[in-house]
Amino acid sequence: MIDLRSDTLTRPTPAMRAAIAAAEVGDDVFGEDPTVRRLEEQTADLLGKEAALFVPSGTMGNQIGVRLHCGAGDEFLCEAECHILNQEQAASAQFFGVFGRGIAAEGHLLTLGHLEDKIRPDDVHYARTRMVCLENTHNRGGGRVLPFAEVEQISAWAAANGLARHLDGARLFNAVVASGIAAREWGRLFDTVSVCFSKGLGAPVGSALVGTRDHIKEVRRLRKALGGGWRQAGLLAAAASFALDHHVDRLADDHANAQILADAVRQSHTLRLAPAQVETNIVIFDLDQRLGTAADFCKRLAEHGVGMYPFGKYRVRAVTHLDVTTEQITQAAEILLELSE
Amino acid sequence: MIDLRSDTLTRPTPAMRAAIAAAEVGDDVFGEDPTVRRLEEQTADLLGKEAALFVPSGTMGNQIGVRLHCGAGDEFLCEAECHILNQEQAASAQFFGVFGRGIAAEGHLLTLGHLEDKIRPDDVHYARTRMVCLENTHNRGGGRVLPFAEVEQISAWAAANGLARHLDGARLFNAVVASGIAAREWGRLFDTVSVCFSKGLGAPVGSALVGTRDHIKEVRRLRKALGGGWRQAGLLAAAASFALDHHVDRLADDHANAQILADAVRQSHTLRLAPAQVETNIVIFDLDQRLGTAADFCKRLAEHGVGMYPFGKYRVRAVTHLDVTTEQITQAAEILLELSE
Amino acid sequence: MIDLRSDTLTRPTPAMRAAIAAAEVGDDVFGEDPTVRRLEEQTADLLGKEAALFVPSGTMGNQIGVRLHCGAGDEFLCEAECHILNQEQAASAQFFGVFGRGIAAEGHLLTLGHLEDKIRPDDVHYARTRMVCLENTHNRGGGRVLPFAEVEQISAWAAANGLARHLDGARLFNAVVASGIAAREWGRLFDTVSVCFSKGLGAPVGSALVGTRDHIKEVRRLRKALGGGWRQAGLLAAAASFALDHHVDRLADDHANAQILADAVRQSHTLRLAPAQVETNIVIFDLDQRLGTAADFCKRLAEHGVGMYPFGKYRVRAVTHLDVTTEQITQAAEILLELSE
Amino acid sequence: MIDLRSDTLTRPTPAMRAAIAAAEVGDDVFGEDPTVRRLEEQTADLLGKEAALFVPSGTMGNQIGVRLHCGAGDEFLCEAECHILNQEQAASAQFFGVFGRGIAAEGHLLTLGHLEDKIRPDDVHYARTRMVCLENTHNRGGGRVLPFAEVEQISAWAAANGLARHLDGARLFNAVVASGIAAREWGRLFDTVSVCFSKGLGAPVGSALVGTRDHIKEVRRLRKALGGGWRQAGLLAAAASFALDHHVDRLADDHANAQILADAVRQSHTLRLAPAQVETNIVIFDLDQRLGTAADFCKRLAEHGVGMYPFGKYRVRAVTHLDVTTEQITQAAEILLELSE
Repeated sequence: MIDLRSDTLTRPTPAMRAAIAAAEVGDDVFGEDPTVRRLEEQTADLLGKEAALFVPSGTMGNQIGVRLHCGAGDEFLCEAECHILNQEQAASAQFFGVFGRGIAAEGHLLTLGHLEDKIRPDDVHYARTRMVCLENTHNRGGGRVLPFAEVEQISAWAAANGLARHLDGARLFNAVVASGIAAREWGRLFDTVSVCFSKGLGAPVGSALVGTRDHIKEVRRLRKALGGGWRQAGLLAAAASFALDHHVDRLADDHANAQILADAVRQSHTLRLAPAQVETNIVIFDLDQRLGTAADFCKRLAEHGVGMYPFGKYRVRAVTHLDVTTEQITQAAEILLELSE
Repeated sequence: MIDLRSDTLTRPTPAMRAAIAAAEVGDDVFGEDPTVRRLEEQTADLLGKEAALFVPSGTMGNQIGVRLHCGAGDEFLCEAECHILNQEQAASAQFFGVFGRGIAAEGHLLTLGHLEDKIRPDDVHYARTRMVCLENTHNRGGGRVLPFAEVEQISAWAAANGLARHLDGARLFNAVVASGIAAREWGRLFDTVSVCFSKGLGAPVGSALVGTRDHIKEVRRLRKALGGGWRQAGLLAAAASFALDHHVDRLADDHANAQILADAVRQSHTLRLAPAQVETNIVIFDLDQRLGTAADFCKRLAEHGVGMYPFGKYRVRAVTHLDVTTEQITQAAEILLELSE
Repeated sequence: MIDLRSDTLTRPTPAMRAAIAAAEVGDDVFGEDPTVRRLEEQTADLLGKEAALFVPSGTMGNQIGVRLHCGAGDEFLCEAECHILNQEQAASAQFFGVFGRGIAAEGHLLTLGHLEDKIRPDDVHYARTRMVCLENTHNRGGGRVLPFAEVEQISAWAAANGLARHLDGARLFNAVVASGIAAREWGRLFDTVSVCFSKGLGAPVGSALVGTRDHIKEVRRLRKALGGGWRQAGLLAAAASFALDHHVDRLADDHANAQILADAVRQSHTLRLAPAQVETNIVIFDLDQRLGTAADFCKRLAEHGVGMYPFGKYRVRAVTHLDVTTEQITQAAEILLELSE
Repeated sequence: MIDLRSDTLTRPTPAMRAAIAAAEVGDDVFGEDPTVRRLEEQTADLLGKEAALFVPSGTMGNQIGVRLHCGAGDEFLCEAECHILNQEQAASAQFFGVFGRGIAAEGHLLTLGHLEDKIRPDDVHYARTRMVCLENTHNRGGGRVLPFAEVEQISAWAAANGLARHLDGARLFNAVVASGIAAREWGRLFDTVSVCFSKGLGAPVGSALVGTRDHIKEVRRLRKALGGGWRQAGLLAAAASFALDHHVDRLADDHANAQILADAVRQSHTLRLAPAQVETNIVIFDLDQRLGTAADFCKRLAEHGVGMYPFGKYRVRAVTHLDVTTEQITQAAEILLELSE
């Protein structure tokens, strides 16, 4: 199976397994796991922040970020189709009483123009606007990298208006590699950033939230309350550190592989890229309805050994990653072309 | 002062005050206030429902409706600018963990086309889609009456898909009078409806939620927990019953008065109706920026004895109601024209 | 019916109705109801505080007090059987995520000794202890007045430890009259106090929370979100002001009447006061099981024209109030004796 | 360091590390990790249930159990000092709006007598009583095993009254080994049970909730929303399976070691067991105040190479576990005696 359903599917490499097996561990609830601490320092440093917290998932990283900056009766502004609002089970509302106000934007790219009249007045009718959340790369937006200059503008405006700034950086390293702009540069535009080790970087489990020392002290409480207080997590942190050391630059390969798939889609008369630009490791395309629904089409692909993910009634997502070679991608592209004839 | 800031500003008439003073009362927490019970039966009957609950505000009527149908981790679908999502302090998220998913629609008019692909799949990533909320007349939409046929379609689709249907009918009686379609006809398209006695109907305090007997038993619990368990509320129920008896048909006068204002706006070169159609008692218009901000413009109006409400940076809302005569409206229209020259 | 089920049952007197009918009103959501403002000033002044907010119920007064001082993940300390924890549908947890930690105390009287080791350490395992709540008079405690010196000690300790102090003063005026200690004296031991106009004071609807100006600004937001933003509430405020002007001192009559009932219970061989002391307007007693359950016994009382309230399987509560004369109480006492033979 | 602060401190053994390194894995969010599935089946089977869910912590196992059975406005009954109410940051209230009603009980042992009058009446004043939670062994209760016959009675009463039954079985295997009553026997008295692999069993990370297939489908949603949706968690599941296979029976050694410590405490004139009985791997004792506070005393112990945990101002907890040998315990007991002279 050439499994392109998600970049979360990667399995640890032998070298990563060796790092796991050798990890020095302690009880991380007591703050005594040396490998977790090392990972947290490494990640904080990469993003130019004081501190980090290692957590079981990107959802936890994002949601403790939301709760850090917002309480019940507050709202945050974000793009209408972003992950934090749509694919995290409305956790911010569900558990924290925080409303995420989604703003529809062309190509899923929020600009300052979308935001600048959205801060609620100080009036009993309104929630308090407390934060702006961005997502980079944007999953629903087809893995697009946010334009740095636009993000800079939004960041400055938010700071000037007393709004916190959180980045869902589940795939930030893809943005870093594609844009050539360092993680630290992106990081300085936000108060907190969550990054995932278990997507393109290929670690088995885990994400991190970075911010100030005070932020991290506070979210450590939240992590515990949410049930994310794990014990000898150094086993997983060892894998994440290994991923940071060895699997960042190679994301360029995933991006090159995504272009092979994108070209196949462009060749097909019944498939259409959505969006047209493919910038990182995500390829989203719409089906001509004669091909059936996305669910049907993905089933046919699976029968031919290719895994892709229905992303709408007639929309399909493919994601390239560490466990898929260029050869396999070329083969997947051929199968895709065959089945879309 | 010709106060057009809102139709919530009306003061009880002498006849209404007499009804209040004479009201027979009891402890409504024990269900023993005969005047409250009479109002609840009257309102339920008007809307064609089994039962009703008298509550202190339209916000409470709406929010207990939301909580009745949805729990934490659920979401409801609604128009992006509706009152329940925007002007009720995100109470559904704040207190109940329920996410309201606002859908942008031309002219604030949701159609079935906007909704039919919005039910989330049964998947751990997604909140559960449980309800559709509509607002009629739509406040931000300039008091427009929802097209009955469209509402019928949405209602049937929602029922077929297991979604509850709640109507924010804060100004439903304006829709009834403007459309000639009875409250009961609108009511049959929804599981629950909230209506306000303290807006166009001119009662001092109170709203009601209508639904089945079981619904009302459940929301009675919610009302108590929210702090809406009032005691000898029959004093206020007497006013509300009086309003239902005497102040529904006369809403036509408010609508006629709104046309006078709308005509004035149309005459002005610096004001523009938004929306262009005025169908009930709300007139919203945008200012040419040379007139200054809405806040400034409303201040100038107030200095000339006319109250209007800033509804955006350059947007103003005027609402006609029971306490404003046609003469006063004509005078207000003249002042508006003068100040917009 | 001599209805002693609760002091919430009182109906407005003719003089109070006259005050209601004549009340000057405005839209209280806009802060423009002069009668509401006057009541709020009067109440704040009585309690020695800067400001007050008029709300529909004692539950709302208490719960906005809780939310003012505590957020999700915080806890407050209180007596295990207090109203705020038990008879308000766990609203603090239900809507705000705040945990109320009930502490069992002999005779429902918390002392400093019960509290001083209860502040949680600063550790990820624990909620944050933020507030102490007391209730005076204590309903489940049989209307007992908290010993002032004990309350002073708790108040000083709480302040020294950074805990907020809220008083559920639903029946504070009973404590004032019984103890001879002014409301202002009690008030100075707390940051916020809620008082009810609709219990012993005999107003139809309403309570108030008092505190600093900043507190009241904040709870005004909460009141709106909870659905307590009422419009021309001056009608009800007029009744509450009338109650403060005319119905405080006369609570002594209710207390004297309660003694008549208490004496009857003491005479009976099958009834036993619980607690033995009756200090204000509440009389609680346990039934010898041969008399049947409290529910049965109250049914028999009702058949003889006396209303009392089952307060446990074999426990009954009677409350004296404005609508019951000494003659009626004497008659009720006789019926009670008869039925308990 | 002979570290007796907690049994969460154990580090994976070489054999367990080998199992981890060799684990076959997949994406557990997609339900595709074979090692996780095997662990879940094994755990469900041990407890006599249909299904299980592997989660990052005991807190998550408990809290998803609470939320499964209770929603906002519901309450559950539990012993006043239990872990779920006190050491999980009030998460049930904080995130779910569920109130935990702690009931004080001699020796932390709830009996049916404590519970049978605690179900709230169906009345708007009260939360809805939905569940009973027990904890076995009871941490604050000094690792005592709940009397099986008492648990049977409570379980039958709860079922007869429509209450769900959840067991916090963080240390259930200690109870199993100490009582000789199989996990499956305990399991049949509850609807859901959470068990921890990372305490006495010595796995690095993880717990499980067991229940019906429908329960587990639902809590899988909750786990995701709380941020517990991990990916290639089979690495950790391999360790947990290894622990179940190899580390259950040996808990008897930990219990024997605890007796050595308990004997030392009994010999000392300045220490007193609290409770007097030591039944499993937890030893709690109070200090004569001349020894200083628990924090001070634990610091002195640490200086002598023994880790214990302050469990109150003058109370200390020691826990025996896999990483501590009988020799080390004997040495720790000597140091304890020395320092308590």
